[in-house]
Amino acid sequence: MNQDYIKPDNWSIIEEGFEKERVKSSESLFSLGNGAMGQRANFEEKYTGSTFQGSYIGGVYYPDKTRVGWWKNGYPEYFAKVLNAPNWIGINVLVNGETLDLNTCKNVRDFRRELNMQEGWYTRSFMATLPNDTTIEVLITRFLSLDHDEVGAIKYQIRAINQDSSMAFHPYLDSGITNEDTNWDEQFWNTTGVTTEGSQAFIEAHTMKTNFATCTFMESRLYHNNEMVTEKPLEALSDTTAVHHFKKDIKKGDTLTLVKFGGYTVSTNHKPNELISAAKEALQKVTEIGFEALLEQQKKSWAKIWEMSDITIEGDVKAQQGIRFNIFHLNQTYLGKDSRLNIGPKGFTGEKYGGSTYWDTEAYCIPFYMATKNKKVARNLLTYRYNHLEKAIENARKLGFVNGAALYPMVTMNGEECHNEWEITFEEIHRNGAIAFAIYNYYRFTSDYTYIPEMGLEVLIGIARFWHQRATFSTQKNKYVILGVTGPNEYENNVNNNFYTNYIAKWCINYTLQELQKVKDGYPDDYHRIIGVTKLSENETEDWAKVAKKMYFPFDEKLGIYLQQDGFLDKELIPVKKLNQKERPINQKWSWDRILRSPYIKQADTLQGFYFFEDHFTTEELEKHFDFYEPFTVHESSLSPCVHSIQAAKLNRMDQAYAFYLRTSRLDLDDYNKEVKEGLHITSMAGTWMSIVEGFGGMRILEDKLSFTPRIPKQWKSYSFKVNFRNRILKVKVTENETTFDLEGTDEMSIRVNGKRVVLTAGQKTYSLVN
Amino acid sequence: MNQDYIKPDNWSIIEEGFEKERVKSSESLFSLGNGAMGQRANFEEKYTGSTFQGSYIGGVYYPDKTRVGWWKNGYPEYFAKVLNAPNWIGINVLVNGETLDLNTCKNVRDFRRELNMQEGWYTRSFMATLPNDTTIEVLITRFLSLDHDEVGAIKYQIRAINQDSSMAFHPYLDSGITNEDTNWDEQFWNTTGVTTEGSQAFIEAHTMKTNFATCTFMESRLYHNNEMVTEKPLEALSDTTAVHHFKKDIKKGDTLTLVKFGGYTVSTNHKPNELISAAKEALQKVTEIGFEALLEQQKKSWAKIWEMSDITIEGDVKAQQGIRFNIFHLNQTYLGKDSRLNIGPKGFTGEKYGGSTYWDTEAYCIPFYMATKNKKVARNLLTYRYNHLEKAIENARKLGFVNGAALYPMVTMNGEECHNEWEITFEEIHRNGAIAFAIYNYYRFTSDYTYIPEMGLEVLIGIARFWHQRATFSTQKNKYVILGVTGPNEYENNVNNNFYTNYIAKWCINYTLQELQKVKDGYPDDYHRIIGVTKLSENETEDWAKVAKKMYFPFDEKLGIYLQQDGFLDKELIPVKKLNQKERPINQKWSWDRILRSPYIKQADTLQGFYFFEDHFTTEELEKHFDFYEPFTVHESSLSPCVHSIQAAKLNRMDQAYAFYLRTSRLDLDDYNKEVKEGLHITSMAGTWMSIVEGFGGMRILEDKLSFTPRIPKQWKSYSFKVNFRNRILKVKVTENETTFDLEGTDEMSIRVNGKRVVLTAGQKTYSLVN
Repeated sequence: MNQDYIKPDNWSIIEEGFEKERVKSSESLFSLGNGAMGQRANFEEKYTGSTFQGSYIGGVYYPDKTRVGWWKNGYPEYFAKVLNAPNWIGINVLVNGETLDLNTCKNVRDFRRELNMQEGWYTRSFMATLPNDTTIEVLITRFLSLDHDEVGAIKYQIRAINQDSSMAFHPYLDSGITNEDTNWDEQFWNTTGVTTEGSQAFIEAHTMKTNFATCTFMESRLYHNNEMVTEKPLEALSDTTAVHHFKKDIKKGDTLTLVKFGGYTVSTNHKPNELISAAKEALQKVTEIGFEALLEQQKKSWAKIWEMSDITIEGDVKAQQGIRFNIFHLNQTYLGKDSRLNIGPKGFTGEKYGGSTYWDTEAYCIPFYMATKNKKVARNLLTYRYNHLEKAIENARKLGFVNGAALYPMVTMNGEECHNEWEITFEEIHRNGAIAFAIYNYYRFTSDYTYIPEMGLEVLIGIARFWHQRATFSTQKNKYVILGVTGPNEYENNVNNNFYTNYIAKWCINYTLQELQKVKDGYPDDYHRIIGVTKLSENETEDWAKVAKKMYFPFDEKLGIYLQQDGFLDKELIPVKKLNQKERPINQKWSWDRILRSPYIKQADTLQGFYFFEDHFTTEELEKHFDFYEPFTVHESSLSPCVHSIQAAKLNRMDQAYAFYLRTSRLDLDDYNKEVKEGLHITSMAGTWMSIVEGFGGMRILEDKLSFTPRIPKQWKSYSFKVNFRNRILKVKVTENETTFDLEGTDEMSIRVNGKRVVLTAGQKTYSLVN
Repeated sequence: MNQDYIKPDNWSIIEEGFEKERVKSSESLFSLGNGAMGQRANFEEKYTGSTFQGSYIGGVYYPDKTRVGWWKNGYPEYFAKVLNAPNWIGINVLVNGETLDLNTCKNVRDFRRELNMQEGWYTRSFMATLPNDTTIEVLITRFLSLDHDEVGAIKYQIRAINQDSSMAFHPYLDSGITNEDTNWDEQFWNTTGVTTEGSQAFIEAHTMKTNFATCTFMESRLYHNNEMVTEKPLEALSDTTAVHHFKKDIKKGDTLTLVKFGGYTVSTNHKPNELISAAKEALQKVTEIGFEALLEQQKKSWAKIWEMSDITIEGDVKAQQGIRFNIFHLNQTYLGKDSRLNIGPKGFTGEKYGGSTYWDTEAYCIPFYMATKNKKVARNLLTYRYNHLEKAIENARKLGFVNGAALYPMVTMNGEECHNEWEITFEEIHRNGAIAFAIYNYYRFTSDYTYIPEMGLEVLIGIARFWHQRATFSTQKNKYVILGVTGPNEYENNVNNNFYTNYIAKWCINYTLQELQKVKDGYPDDYHRIIGVTKLSENETEDWAKVAKKMYFPFDEKLGIYLQQDGFLDKELIPVKKLNQKERPINQKWSWDRILRSPYIKQADTLQGFYFFEDHFTTEELEKHFDFYEPFTVHESSLSPCVHSIQAAKLNRMDQAYAFYLRTSRLDLDDYNKEVKEGLHITSMAGTWMSIVEGFGGMRILEDKLSFTPRIPKQWKSYSFKVNFRNRILKVKVTENETTFDLEGTDEMSIRVNGKRVVLTAGQKTYSLVN
């Protein structure tokens, strides 16, 4: 843990006291999003201290020309960057002619931020004395509307504390923004129009190269002690800014309030030449509703989200705050409405990593969205990959694969690969497996088979073709091998026969063959269409089957474990706990070669295979592998603790499971990795949810039924969660003594608890003893 | 072969006819150098066509901030770039008011370049009709003085062919130059002074960051039909240029000649505030001598170099031209006078690769310089590394090594590592072995032991310490292993137990232990000094010995061969000849992962070990390994064909040896790799020399004596070479029927020919039958 300034609270994230060095961290933690856009918790007013400015629009990106030291054949031409969008939240504040800037105030008291996760709003309040000795009290409330997702709202209130004062608000739009993350310091935006009409203003700007057209807009109203001031503001326009000047002299004790609505209309949703009229329409709607009523809508909409996705924890405020923080930010990032969007690793909270889509989506996020929303949301995420199939085939072609083999990208915005380290881009190919696994997992959880004949099977065929071609035959071993890969543990590069990769490759082929048969039998029309499109022959599938059948897996007979890769046992096998604490984290202290030849594991690798395919192995096998690999694991990926927490719980090692849980759920709140100022770890937040539901709750799908093995950490009095399983809503509550199942709806549902069949009746509580 | 426009000639490189698309290639091929400075064969007059401008000063570099896609711990902060230096060769030419530019002339006839390698000068001549219909005949002669190595000389002659003409010469200096190779388009030079005095001019400029101060200077004289024109030129100065304006109206048939001397004085050789006075002194010397006499000196100095280093070949002009081209450029690049300099991979012919020193120096160049110059030159190259020992220890420390372990850099200018690909920088550690091997080889060849107690042993101790720490113990194998390396074959990265690396590591340790004992016994004072400096204990050397003794080597019992690395036999072992020609060269056609998982070998790897340690293996073992590895070798490194040529000759496969010889000797002349426009492959030129001397001549040192196994390619009538072995000059001539040995000096010398002892008497020819 690197910080602990966030107050423990069940429903809110709260910071008290103004510390300049915390500003960037808090800008990340208090970020707002509504699935369509979002922004860091930057101050509205001018701030000359250290800050990381960021506003983001879902799906709007820039292809930044690749920068490498040494070019390798096959590298992508660009890296799709998350794009800092024009700023609509800015409101400069002048008090008796002096600009409010918390960095230069003589005194800042009672500074407080609150991110109310239950209701979806953020406030900031403080009392400040400016260099000109005017003291003011400020309260700002901000939210991004879930119901009108092109719009956000800000209420900025100032009270004159020590004297009659002349107050001015200068709300503005600014498209002269830059990215912190840029390879060549290029300008990403081209501004084509800055206009103002009364209290409304519009900036039209499009991204360079990708040509996403946007209209950033605002409309502001001034209130003096709650009474609207009707004078029209003065205007000041530049090439990239539009400013309105509101001014009012007020008495000591009076309050002046600016209500500002703003946001974006984008050419992904409107015709490019109708962006201003769309913006006016959006503004008309929300100004008619008004700030307070819009906020009431907001509370209701968030209540609906929480109704289904909340996890309660009694007896452990920090754990409770942690899980809600994770669930809240996941919902701020992605709501599943738009199949063109995905779950970026930093969501709307930062620029790092670029791209929007990693294998995190399939491996970690889909289970969360399937269980807390509905199959449509998960299906949208699968459809996203189906829509990128052509690009995945093109990616594979660039690497020399033929005949429709598909390699999904490591990082992407539009389906094209963006990443540019050969050991990742070209070799971390296991990502293809996770995409196939998600198809399997989607059907397993939702029982919606239609995705497979309609779209999924084509994806599976592309993936199976890739594995078939990527495996090569070793005469020496008389087996198929997969050489030169990087597994999930990125602290190994260019290894041979990574167990996880080989295992999922074999599984992908077998699963594709199985689904081919099912579609042939059950959906003959789709089958013929797919055979027509893919030109798949029987010879070809027979060849696939050979590869799957003769796949090689490195295994040590003496230890009885699968090796992470060929040669793993040649390493100096010194467990992590014997490392000098000063050498941690090794990715900051050691050179890359030293990390590579060490046995240290960044995140679950062999164990990731045991997580996906738990039912292929006995608990004893899991235990043996967990005991062998976890001691070498440094958990320096945000995706590591959750899988280990789930497996520790499965092995009934509750102290260890709880420690991993805390680490995953409060990774950002407590800033374990000293980097929260760069943004939050959004995708790993879904892993936190899994730690409770699959870890402590022991939820699985076995033989087509939900199954639970509930356990509770000794630090907790109870916890509860809900899942939407095949359109049945089931609430599970676990206390020290018992587990309660509440089934919504009308019919019965049969589940398994601790291995025993239990029939739940809707509306009736069912009890089952724990331990 | 990609081009064949160079006329075959025994002593000259000749181009006839003006082809714009050949200009950049010829700029490389016709480059001039004198060990201290050099430049590409850029035109003196203005040229608006495609050109690659390059002038270089030995040892003057710029630390260009590292550019990578993803930063890894331990990467160097900068890459030391070969620096395009201020231009002193420029002479703009105006003919009847119009600027001569071969790119825009109406007509260019009789264009001819000649690089006379025997005498060390370069001429260019042509007849051109300008757009204004004036026709002129031009002859330019240029050379860089070997005797006054701060100075070069140009004689630029114009004859008016079709009309009386007004001619003007504008000789200039220009420090407003840029590098083609730059990471961030930074300005590398800061010009501090531009001055002119009569017909002399000076530009003072220093490199940014490294602060090398230079004075670029010139002095010009005008001659009308060989009579000096005494009018002083007009001057025109800018921030970064100094121009003199010479003008003369001449009659049809008359000749106007500008003689220009120019060059650099540098703060590495003078006090920074005395650069102009040093320049004046240099100019005074050469102007007193005059152009023609200076050229006569040049011819004599080159004759001296050829006297010792020439290789003659009868019956094969292309082969003769090739070897002389190689020897000529090696001598232009490095003459061994200055132990601060080294042999850059592109010499003074281009910027690519940056840095000046690679393991090429030790593995390929030292044998050439030892045999064709004297031990002092080779010793200077070894001293260069001794002077960098502290930096090598620092490099190792950055990678986590302790206790004085030294890792010499992959690429360097000043001892610091410059390279920035983790798989090379951190893992291509075998380079350390070549540096130790060169010490061994130096003593073996020169019998000068003093380098070892004085300097070499400290280097060896640093290297042995590195290998001891870099090897790790595999409990599984009960052997020491070296994990995560890149061998000489850079088409494999991060492999385990590369045979070559493990072998040279073991050898380094054993050799260091042996030399420690020898120095202890024979040079006790040095020994105690070294023990004091290195704090070496007996415990430590015992630990080293354990690693050497239990070093692991991958070996396949069935094939009876050492494996290039663990797992090599798991690859799809399809020989190169079965590859589709369209897929070659694979480094341009395949993505990196495909190359890595293929069996294809860029340059000798296991066979490089067999080359260095030939006497450790039987000829049958060599044959077996050659037969196994060569068929997988694509020779896509310029350093590959020479080693294979030597080994093919050793195995008496003369056709193959000859084919490899042609490829190495005419690599640049025939532009095998389609890249000669970027500069020449200087270091591999030493390999060409080895192909003849060690390959066809079969020269070895066995049991402290020179030994020969002469063979001759059937395409040749004869060949001859000279070697300076321990200050005895021996000339060897091989014809189809016999080998002649000519020994200079007074005493006898005993050698071995085809395994038999032969006693040579100085002054008497000794014959021995071939075959």
